[in-house]
Formats: sequence, C-alpha cells, structure tokens
Amino acid sequence: MNTFPTHAATPKPPYYAVIFTSLKSEEPEGYNDTSERMLELVHQQEGFLGFESFRNEHGFGVTISYWRSLEEIKKWKQNDPHLWAQEQGKKRWYKSYKVRICKVEHDYSFDSE
Amino acid sequence: MNTFPTHAATPKPPYYAVIFTSLKSEEPEGYNDTSERMLELVHQQEGFLGFESFRNEHGFGVTISYWRSLEEIKKWKQNDPHLWAQEQGKKRWYKSYKVRICKVEHDYSFDSE
Repeated sequence: MNTFPTHAATPKPPYYAVIFTSLKSEEPEGYNDTSERMLELVHQQEGFLGFESFRNEHGFGVTISYWRSLEEIKKWKQNDPHLWAQEQGKKRWYKSYKVRICKVEHDYSFDSE
Repeated sequence: MNTFPTHAATPKPPYYAVIFTSLKSEEPEGYNDTSERMLELVHQQEGFLGFESFRNEHGFGVTISYWRSLEEIKKWKQNDPHLWAQEQGKKRWYKSYKVRICKVEHDYSFDSE
C-alpha cells in the first residue's frame, strides 16, 4: 500500500482535465502558503474530482486537476481567493505558465496487484 | 533563457493530449534504455506535437504527450517497438499506470518576459 498520493481516482469518462504547467520564479514569496490554501479550497469546489502535481529541480512543474464539467472549472477560475492567487501568480510566482482545458474522452489503467 | 525543456510548444486547439501517470517498480531493469529509445521513436511519429515529463521521489510520474489526432495516437500505440515496450512495462517496470486520452479544447498562457 502506498502512503503517498498516486493516480487520481476519477470516474468513467467523459470528464475534464486542466493541465497547468508552470515555471516558478527563483524566490516566489508567499507561494507555499497560498498554494496550500488553494488546495484546501479546491477540494471544497463542486465538481472537483482530484489532482496530480509534480515539480522538477528546474522549477518547472505541472498540476493536473480533474473536473466533472466545464462550468465547474469556470466557477473555480472565478472564485475570489483563487482570483487573488492568480494575480499573485502573474506578479510574483511564475516566470511563465500554460493552461490547457481538456475533455477526457477515454481512459484505461493497469495495476500489478 | 532556459536550457531545460519547459512548456511543450503546441499549436492552436483543438489537438489531443495523452496523460500517462505511472508508479515505477523498485528495480525497473532496462527501463532507462527503452525509455530513451521510445523518446527517439515518438519524435519520428506523424502527428506527435511534443511532451512534458515528471517523476517524483516516490517513483510516481506523469508523461503528457500531445498529438494532432486520435488516429495518430492509435498508430503510436500499435508501433512495434512500442508494443514491446508496453509489454515490458506491464511485466517489469510499472506497479500501476493510467492512461487518459483527452481532447484539448482551449488553452492560454502567460509569459513574464
């Protein structure tokens, strides 16, 4: 049994994925606190299904969040504390980012156990 | 300027993304060589647009590859050396994996420079 998070437990497709790649600034002041707070908040959002997140030694990372619908993705984008965090992201935390909104049409998996 | 790969340079949507999350075995013999070879081969595939790849300290990782069409994703899935690699993946390299086939419907980005 794993004690760390692995594959997000998503339902049968179709559902949606937001692929957020980002390159962090060298000194992203306040990033960790806000990041934790956003994670708490997103878990309370209607339609949020789960996420997977990675960052490499160069400060480049990806967070993939999964959603039930496009409307619920939009509501999270317009959430007040999240709007503030998005502004901070542009001003302080990220050199660059890219957001891709995707419809998951098909999935399959393998488990050796 | 970055000397390491960051955001894949994808065209205007729509295009496709394959989100491959995997949990590696403790001793994945032959994994690195095959992984490098697959990376060479996939770059020669028609319709391959780019990729982003990450793995954390627990052996859990994600590779997102971007494609022009579903047909071209299928062709890569059926590529002979890749079929062999997929078999090895199940036998030796991965404890578990999940593949999500997605249509990228919309994207946007930010660059501070």
